[in-house]
Amino acid sequence: MAVGFTGMPEMLPVAGFRIGVASAGIKKPGRRDLVVMELAPGAECAAVFTRNAFCAAPVVLAREHLGKAQPRYLLINTGNANAGTGERGMRDAQACCEALAGVVGCAPAEVLPFSTGVIGEPLPVDKIVASLPAAVTALMDNAWEAAAHGIMTTDTVPKAASRRLTIDGKAVTITGIAKGAGMIRPDMATMLCFVATDAEVGREWLQTCLEAAVNRSFNRITVDGDTSTNDACVLVATGASGVPIERSEALTAFSEAVAQVCEHLAQAIVRDGEGATKFITVDVDGGCDSDECLKVAYTVAHSPLVKTAFFASDPNWGRILAAVGRAGVADLDLQAITIHLGDVCIVRGGGRAEDYEEAMGAAVMKEEEITIRIDLKRGTARERVWTCDFSYDYVRINAEYRT
Amino acid sequence: MAVGFTGMPEMLPVAGFRIGVASAGIKKPGRRDLVVMELAPGAECAAVFTRNAFCAAPVVLAREHLGKAQPRYLLINTGNANAGTGERGMRDAQACCEALAGVVGCAPAEVLPFSTGVIGEPLPVDKIVASLPAAVTALMDNAWEAAAHGIMTTDTVPKAASRRLTIDGKAVTITGIAKGAGMIRPDMATMLCFVATDAEVGREWLQTCLEAAVNRSFNRITVDGDTSTNDACVLVATGASGVPIERSEALTAFSEAVAQVCEHLAQAIVRDGEGATKFITVDVDGGCDSDECLKVAYTVAHSPLVKTAFFASDPNWGRILAAVGRAGVADLDLQAITIHLGDVCIVRGGGRAEDYEEAMGAAVMKEEEITIRIDLKRGTARERVWTCDFSYDYVRINAEYRT
Repeated sequence: MAVGFTGMPEMLPVAGFRIGVASAGIKKPGRRDLVVMELAPGAECAAVFTRNAFCAAPVVLAREHLGKAQPRYLLINTGNANAGTGERGMRDAQACCEALAGVVGCAPAEVLPFSTGVIGEPLPVDKIVASLPAAVTALMDNAWEAAAHGIMTTDTVPKAASRRLTIDGKAVTITGIAKGAGMIRPDMATMLCFVATDAEVGREWLQTCLEAAVNRSFNRITVDGDTSTNDACVLVATGASGVPIERSEALTAFSEAVAQVCEHLAQAIVRDGEGATKFITVDVDGGCDSDECLKVAYTVAHSPLVKTAFFASDPNWGRILAAVGRAGVADLDLQAITIHLGDVCIVRGGGRAEDYEEAMGAAVMKEEEITIRIDLKRGTARERVWTCDFSYDYVRINAEYRT
Repeated sequence: MAVGFTGMPEMLPVAGFRIGVASAGIKKPGRRDLVVMELAPGAECAAVFTRNAFCAAPVVLAREHLGKAQPRYLLINTGNANAGTGERGMRDAQACCEALAGVVGCAPAEVLPFSTGVIGEPLPVDKIVASLPAAVTALMDNAWEAAAHGIMTTDTVPKAASRRLTIDGKAVTITGIAKGAGMIRPDMATMLCFVATDAEVGREWLQTCLEAAVNRSFNRITVDGDTSTNDACVLVATGASGVPIERSEALTAFSEAVAQVCEHLAQAIVRDGEGATKFITVDVDGGCDSDECLKVAYTVAHSPLVKTAFFASDPNWGRILAAVGRAGVADLDLQAITIHLGDVCIVRGGGRAEDYEEAMGAAVMKEEEITIRIDLKRGTARERVWTCDFSYDYVRINAEYRT
């Protein structure tokens, strides 16, 4: 069970955005693994995708379609990533878009395809195509929860967030879902995330808003350092609320709300990281620039030794210190650096803080949610990333994934 | 048990180099955990150390002593790394050097200290000092095997290599030992490695020779990507064979033999990597330069997803492809790249090779020693790194390390 999971939040419907879920039996018979999302005519759509060079066929095709037309439908399957599938993968993704276009009566380029699951297996196009009519028939105003379940792979819980804010006296809704538990070190995006709002937002600004939100959420998390081939994050603005986001305060408020939804979803991915038993925040302060703060934060967040120590609830702070030391930041002032575990100072003056006692660290380590604070004491830059621990279950899940 | 371990090789003694082992009870009572190495007067000594910014007190002091005097003694303890111990750590390392100098009658700067074990605990100086006379009394011509055991931490087997070559009709011996099983991603050196030869070699050239050897051995391995605070690799030339290494063929032959010893020891570390069940060679060919080959090789070698797939003997080649794609190499020609697992081509034309069948990959995966070959097809550079898989035991060993 994901760290700190307390059940699904209330999912507010987004006017102008419908969802239909069906069962195509892609990997497991009976599993509801196919999701269709319908955007009202005129809805704007922004997206960011993985920077993995070997990006999956649906990523390539979705990018292509975005350049050609305004999307009307998103087609998502789990159980198969259609990645590493070469030319055939492209034809398969195209065939699925064409089939959905045929069912709903739109152009194929108005469909954006998304796939997640095992890499390198041919996409079972027939199964998907056969289930499209059922998914379209199922389209309804609020099927967010079913969709959150429908896009899961090794996730143990669905991930969702919803916010309502008032702009110019009128209500605007933002609702989103995400999936991902392994192969998580997003780069410009996460595994799969779909956020919709009924606000009226121009496409260019919608893209800016999404990129800013992703940058402080999905681009700040890691489970295992492996960037997926299929990462994609989509933000749809249907405009159905009739509330235009134009004035500067509205832009700020809306942008902040989108970022909060993304942050919540990104954290939910880490909380449900494969095998995770701890949710860890790594704060790096006092850096010369953002880059070196991120270097230190990710080196700590990726260290298998740090992560196994957290799994064992062992305040083995020497491993954190060793990770900071190998992060590749030049001319660190080792005497000045401080490291805190929760509120406990563990490193000061180049080594273990003089007033530190093992029991103090052990008390923090017992918690499920822990913050590591590293102060480089050489500048004003700061960065925060989130990660989880490394447990037997991570090995089990990934050793057994295809069996 | 380490992958492919077939017992200790014959350890040839090195004239002018004596070893004494004693039990100081640093971490476990009765454990032979203290090693003293004695260099004949006039012996030359080259060394490389970790580039971890938080390097341990003995590393700082050994560097300092090397700048001041020609070493006569190496003092090595396991069970405690004397790292992250601040000013006190420096005083403790100094005290140990002074104590040994007192026992043998040399200057403290003629002693180089080395420590390995848990980070952040104060060094038990009293225990070490009390056992120094026993270690010195035990000094003998061929105690390499005892020393190889004496420097182990989480290693399951001792690591040693020995070569004899003929130069100008005379025999020259090179013998070395190493330790390390976790926190292994050496950077200019490995955890701890001591190599001695009876050849007569000038210091400057000895250093060049060591750096070249380390670069193709210890700097090409990874277990978990964590660079240690205590990495150190020492090469001693006693000159006792009376064979000077001066002519260019002799230099080449000697240099190659030292590199082979280091390569054997580096591979032994990976074979005994914490929890390792597979020994994996990652070959990257066809790169534009060495840097990009190493980027790709290390990204694959560090990927927890690739490593857990190897543990499961699962030919989940999609994870290898995904790792290549996220290595950060710009403008890869995805259609041209080929990936082989052993002799089996798994990736060609941007995805799974058309003639590949799961059974072919599964057969390779059953082996204990596996080579991944990635051909970037865009240049002539090539690099090779060695790594191991990621198993339940890695998590167990590192979750239980301090308990």
